Amino acid sequence: MSTVNRQWLLKRRPAGHLNEGDFEYREAPIPSDDLKPGEILVRNVGFLCAPTMRNWMDPPSKSLYPSIPLGQPIMAPGVARVTASQADGIKAGDRVLGLSSWQDYAVLSGGGLRRPTLIPDGIDFLEGIGRYGLNPMTAYFGLLDVGAAVSGETLVVSGAAGSTGSTAAQIGKIKGMKVIGIAGGKSKCAWLTNECGIDAAIDYKSEDVAARIAQLCPAGIDVFYDNVGGEILQAAIDNMAPKGRIVLCGQIASYDTAETAEGLRNMMRLIYGSIRMQGFLCGNYADRFNEAVNNLKAWTAAGKINYREDLRTGFENLPKSFSALFDGSNAGTLLVQIDDSAKETR
Amino acid sequence: MSTVNRQWLLKRRPAGHLNEGDFEYREAPIPSDDLKPGEILVRNVGFLCAPTMRNWMDPPSKSLYPSIPLGQPIMAPGVARVTASQADGIKAGDRVLGLSSWQDYAVLSGGGLRRPTLIPDGIDFLEGIGRYGLNPMTAYFGLLDVGAAVSGETLVVSGAAGSTGSTAAQIGKIKGMKVIGIAGGKSKCAWLTNECGIDAAIDYKSEDVAARIAQLCPAGIDVFYDNVGGEILQAAIDNMAPKGRIVLCGQIASYDTAETAEGLRNMMRLIYGSIRMQGFLCGNYADRFNEAVNNLKAWTAAGKINYREDLRTGFENLPKSFSALFDGSNAGTLLVQIDDSAKETR
Repeated sequence: MSTVNRQWLLKRRPAGHLNEGDFEYREAPIPSDDLKPGEILVRNVGFLCAPTMRNWMDPPSKSLYPSIPLGQPIMAPGVARVTASQADGIKAGDRVLGLSSWQDYAVLSGGGLRRPTLIPDGIDFLEGIGRYGLNPMTAYFGLLDVGAAVSGETLVVSGAAGSTGSTAAQIGKIKGMKVIGIAGGKSKCAWLTNECGIDAAIDYKSEDVAARIAQLCPAGIDVFYDNVGGEILQAAIDNMAPKGRIVLCGQIASYDTAETAEGLRNMMRLIYGSIRMQGFLCGNYADRFNEAVNNLKAWTAAGKINYREDLRTGFENLPKSFSALFDGSNAGTLLVQIDDSAKETR
Repeated sequence: MSTVNRQWLLKRRPAGHLNEGDFEYREAPIPSDDLKPGEILVRNVGFLCAPTMRNWMDPPSKSLYPSIPLGQPIMAPGVARVTASQADGIKAGDRVLGLSSWQDYAVLSGGGLRRPTLIPDGIDFLEGIGRYGLNPMTAYFGLLDVGAAVSGETLVVSGAAGSTGSTAAQIGKIKGMKVIGIAGGKSKCAWLTNECGIDAAIDYKSEDVAARIAQLCPAGIDVFYDNVGGEILQAAIDNMAPKGRIVLCGQIASYDTAETAEGLRNMMRLIYGSIRMQGFLCGNYADRFNEAVNNLKAWTAAGKINYREDLRTGFENLPKSFSALFDGSNAGTLLVQIDDSAKETR
């Protein structure tokens, strides 16, 4: 291991689309293991590139998400090996999943929603952040708990070819729902219907989403799992069935742009339809992560969950790899491995 | 009783604000008591002027609310005496609360959400539609069930001086919440703080609602009970506390206008705050109306619920009376009595 702590810092707030100049590389000393109570020192192994991290690069706002301070390492979900711990229930040598940052070594806080969780034995670091990581767990809790999905209902998923969306769509099929996915482009739509086995896909790049939803869901949408927001969310609101549930998972349409999307209308449909719109974070369910992983493993073993991973390597490539989320060049869960121990399973 | 059935019909769809010419008076024959299974013939005694009826006068839309056909009597919540019944559980002579229409006699369907409910013995017709009627019951179920209000939390109510809003605000106080009301004008605000005993009132006509909410709710809003929509709902969204609940009860800001309000933004706050926005109808709780009436009676007897009624009389005045909802000239629950039996309690 190097004796320096490589870091990618937020140099400036992105104006619209991400730019190389928004990030700055630095080499700092490795943090001391003289920790405060509750703190954990980790050696990062890999990171998930999550679209919502783009929000964290914006200035503090009314939206309750964290804002990375200028000059500080980029916050990111990551998997890591604990090198020292002053937190209850976590010891040196443990493997953890948590909110880390783009550097070799990081001091994590053990408290609240940001408390790291242990990666179950038997899955490697990359599986812990990818195949069985935050995105599929988000889909699991979002669809089944927040969405209260029930067999026989109609599920529509936006961002359906993405990491979270494709898992939500496939869990919907496992649960006996009629599933329609919304994605961008013929190839993603074909993957959803041919490989993932959902009932229909809507290509928002070439089709009228609202018209197609109305056509494919004549009795309305029972559960709308939304990763996108904006016009696509509006089309869903206008087509929700009575007692329907809108699961607010993401709003990627508005993350990497300086433009403001049209605001949402037709709250009267929510009233007259007794429709629920609910935001959530995967971390709310940290005490049930093992349940989600166990179910995802079983469904994967049974060949019921298609999973695509876009694994990249190299600390030096972090900003470029992350940017692929927004230029359409990635396919599947975007991971960046920065350490050779990534395949260790305990 | 007259031998004719007086009716107020929807003559044309209102364009923006209501206009006398939108309504047409007609005298029709009294309907036959040769009913189909499930039907009920009633003699109407009084009507509630509910703001949402303004929506029903619009053309069919994506909003799931009913649209009154042109040339048909205006649909309205009403109390009535049953004169003939082919519906299970309802017999001639019963007193009912239900979705009726602006005419002396009406045939009601007994099915679904529109199934009339019996008015409990001991309260008169006007109490059945007013003091213990749909608006206070809406407030009861909206705050306690949809809003899942808990002692010690902060409640903000829009349209707080209205019939539903003032009850929601006062139930909030009964349940031990900190309660802030939003209303239009000094006099309504003074009534809320001085007579209804809520903690603070915001006058949206003279104050910056978002700034005042931020000031009065430094830890955010736990429950927002919304009767108004539009900018005021936006101000609440931007100030919701984590795990907060938005109760969508009405959107009166946009009912009687041809203008389209700004759409809602900042769904990211709903996501990062794990915030729920839920629409509902009072009719969802029809099997618990007696519970609501009993609690409202007990709180009223204990002097804990201030109630203001704007009782008008005369079938001929129905359109004019209803219009008072939208020109600011009414204060309290707006009822129109059309029959002298209104004070009968069984």
